[in-house]
Amino acid sequence: MKKVVLLRHGESVWNNENRFTGWTDVDLSPKGVEEAAAAGKVLKENGFSFQKAYTSYLKRAVKTLNGVLDAMDLDWIPVEKSWRLNEKHYGMLQGLNKTETAAKYGEEQVLVWRRSYDIAPAPLAADDSRSPRFDIRYSELKDAEIPLTESLKETVERAVPFWENVIAPSMKQYDQVIVTAHGNSLRGIIKFLKNISDKDIISLNLPTAVPYVFEFDDSMNLVKDSFLGDPDEIAKKMNAVANQGKK
Amino acid sequence: MKKVVLLRHGESVWNNENRFTGWTDVDLSPKGVEEAAAAGKVLKENGFSFQKAYTSYLKRAVKTLNGVLDAMDLDWIPVEKSWRLNEKHYGMLQGLNKTETAAKYGEEQVLVWRRSYDIAPAPLAADDSRSPRFDIRYSELKDAEIPLTESLKETVERAVPFWENVIAPSMKQYDQVIVTAHGNSLRGIIKFLKNISDKDIISLNLPTAVPYVFEFDDSMNLVKDSFLGDPDEIAKKMNAVANQGKK
Repeated sequence: MKKVVLLRHGESVWNNENRFTGWTDVDLSPKGVEEAAAAGKVLKENGFSFQKAYTSYLKRAVKTLNGVLDAMDLDWIPVEKSWRLNEKHYGMLQGLNKTETAAKYGEEQVLVWRRSYDIAPAPLAADDSRSPRFDIRYSELKDAEIPLTESLKETVERAVPFWENVIAPSMKQYDQVIVTAHGNSLRGIIKFLKNISDKDIISLNLPTAVPYVFEFDDSMNLVKDSFLGDPDEIAKKMNAVANQGKK
Repeated sequence: MKKVVLLRHGESVWNNENRFTGWTDVDLSPKGVEEAAAAGKVLKENGFSFQKAYTSYLKRAVKTLNGVLDAMDLDWIPVEKSWRLNEKHYGMLQGLNKTETAAKYGEEQVLVWRRSYDIAPAPLAADDSRSPRFDIRYSELKDAEIPLTESLKETVERAVPFWENVIAPSMKQYDQVIVTAHGNSLRGIIKFLKNISDKDIISLNLPTAVPYVFEFDDSMNLVKDSFLGDPDEIAKKMNAVANQGKK
């Protein structure tokens, strides 16, 4: 059985402040660092051992992965990073406090922006200093690939090719890999793997730093998926994510 | 001007205990973690920005690199790991306290083992549990490549090809790269770059976590090499390394 573990990064300093983050490269909070080590510990205790790891270009995901691998004594395995695993780009909302945004635009509009499948927040202006085109790490991207905002649909459309073209083909070589990324890029991969509708994917709230294990047969047909950890604890975490952005 | 920064890992828990480490995968000490962050800070303050990083399969080097990159906001850059950058394999000495070894075998014999160019410590037995052939991370190596001990000469002979075949060719693509590794694998690269004799390389004592900057012209001819940091501090660190293994 082949296994792919999807892991949402631990709490960031902006999760903590309830601000829209998107492609802003904010750090893990001390709690997030602890969550990463705890995820590594539970993976090790359950006999996992990865041959390869994938993560995004954002430090909250990279550092979560580093913490997981260190807790598993797997610091040495190859790690591949890609912008395609980045969080959804939140356009002009990036940096704003979620509660303030809800007060200003209305809780309903915020929910539309956060939770609708194909409606994107208002884009950054082309000359906005927050634009990825001013960030050297995205210099490899074609102009059309650089987002100034994204709907969940657009996030899915650039994340899924990374599954199809990179991760899935690598499973010919590997038995177990880990993908440490973000709520919405992981939604994209999960939507694809489980064939979840545009409507239903919106209500999938991934808990932070809880390993989500996907098992495949040798032809990479999905056989089983399950979270690793205490079910009550996981339910509590999922609920906390769903309630973000409420006043 | 192209720049390659060579960095010896920060203090490990065994440096601290004065034990022979070699391929034993020991962790950084708290001081080593601080040294890594400090190295990243000084590199950033001096305007360095790497496009690629290389490190060994040993966590004290990987975690030093992670600390450096994080301090530079470069967590996202690609990192390539190789066993060829590992520390010299110290054979049966691995795990022994340096002072005890000096008392048992004599300070002179320890200096021969630590400091001679082509004499290796006694090898591990083939069935010794410390043998790299029982470690999954070295399963890609050919039998003849797996060391049970190494002289500095043998360390140089497997480290230099990584410079020649991987790092140097990659400088066509990159302007600045960092190599975070170990006292003896870095000696190998430095010996090659500066054409240092077998005899003289023995007395080169690299300080821990001090960036050693090599500058090249566009044809990768070495133009200049210098340590980055306070000269007095560096001299003190080099001296401390030279004095290890004395009773």
